[in-house]
Amino acid sequence: MTTLGLHVIADIGGASGLDDCARIDATLRSAAQAAGVTVLDVRMHHFGEGCGVTGVVLLAESHISIHTWPEHALAAVDIFVCGPLADADAALAEICARLGGHVVMRRDIARLALG
Amino acid sequence: MTTLGLHVIADIGGASGLDDCARIDATLRSAAQAAGVTVLDVRMHHFGEGCGVTGVVLLAESHISIHTWPEHALAAVDIFVCGPLADADAALAEICARLGGHVVMRRDIARLALG
Repeated sequence: MTTLGLHVIADIGGASGLDDCARIDATLRSAAQAAGVTVLDVRMHHFGEGCGVTGVVLLAESHISIHTWPEHALAAVDIFVCGPLADADAALAEICARLGGHVVMRRDIARLALG
Repeated sequence: MTTLGLHVIADIGGASGLDDCARIDATLRSAAQAAGVTVLDVRMHHFGEGCGVTGVVLLAESHISIHTWPEHALAAVDIFVCGPLADADAALAEICARLGGHVVMRRDIARLALG
C-alpha cells in the first residue's frame, strides 16, 4: 500500500523554555532544517508572560506544530511530512534537544493510503 | 488519568473542491465555529492552479489543519483541541459535509497525560 505521508504525534516531557516564544520559533525552524523540508510560513502565538506558546510551520511537505504548557514542562508536537526524503525523526530529535526534553508519548500514523 | 487535549487525525476521501483555496479557508473557519473554539489566526497556502491547498487555523484551544490532494480527492485533517467544551467531532463532520467527502481513516489520540 502506498501512502502519501507520515504523521508523527509526540508529547515531550521535562522540557524547559516553553514560555519563550523566540526560542520556540527558532526550535521549529531548526527542526524543519533537520528534516530537510521547505518552510513556507511560520506563525507563532504567545499566550502571555509565563504562559504557553503555539507555533505552526507550514511546509511544502505539510506542517510541524507545537503547543507548550510551561507549568507542566510539556510540549505537544506533530510533524506531518510527505515525500521520501523528509526526515520526521530528525525533526523530533532536534525539538527534544533544543527544549531539553524527552518523548513521553509517540504515535506514527501513515497518512493518505492510495489504492 | 487526566489528559490536556484530544487530537483527531482523519483522512477524508471522495472530497471535491480541494483546489479551491477560498472554499478550504471557509471550511476551516466553519469547522472551528462548529467545534465551539476560538480562532486566533488562519494561514492558507495554495500550491497553484488545480493543485492542493494547505491550511492551518491557530486556536486558543490548539489547532486545526488540512492538506488537500485534489488529484486523489483526498484531504488530510487534524483537529487538536484542549478543554472539555471543544467538540472535535463537530469540526470533522463540518469539514466532511462542506467537502462532500467521508472519513476513510481516523485515529483519536489523548494528548498530554498528567500524573
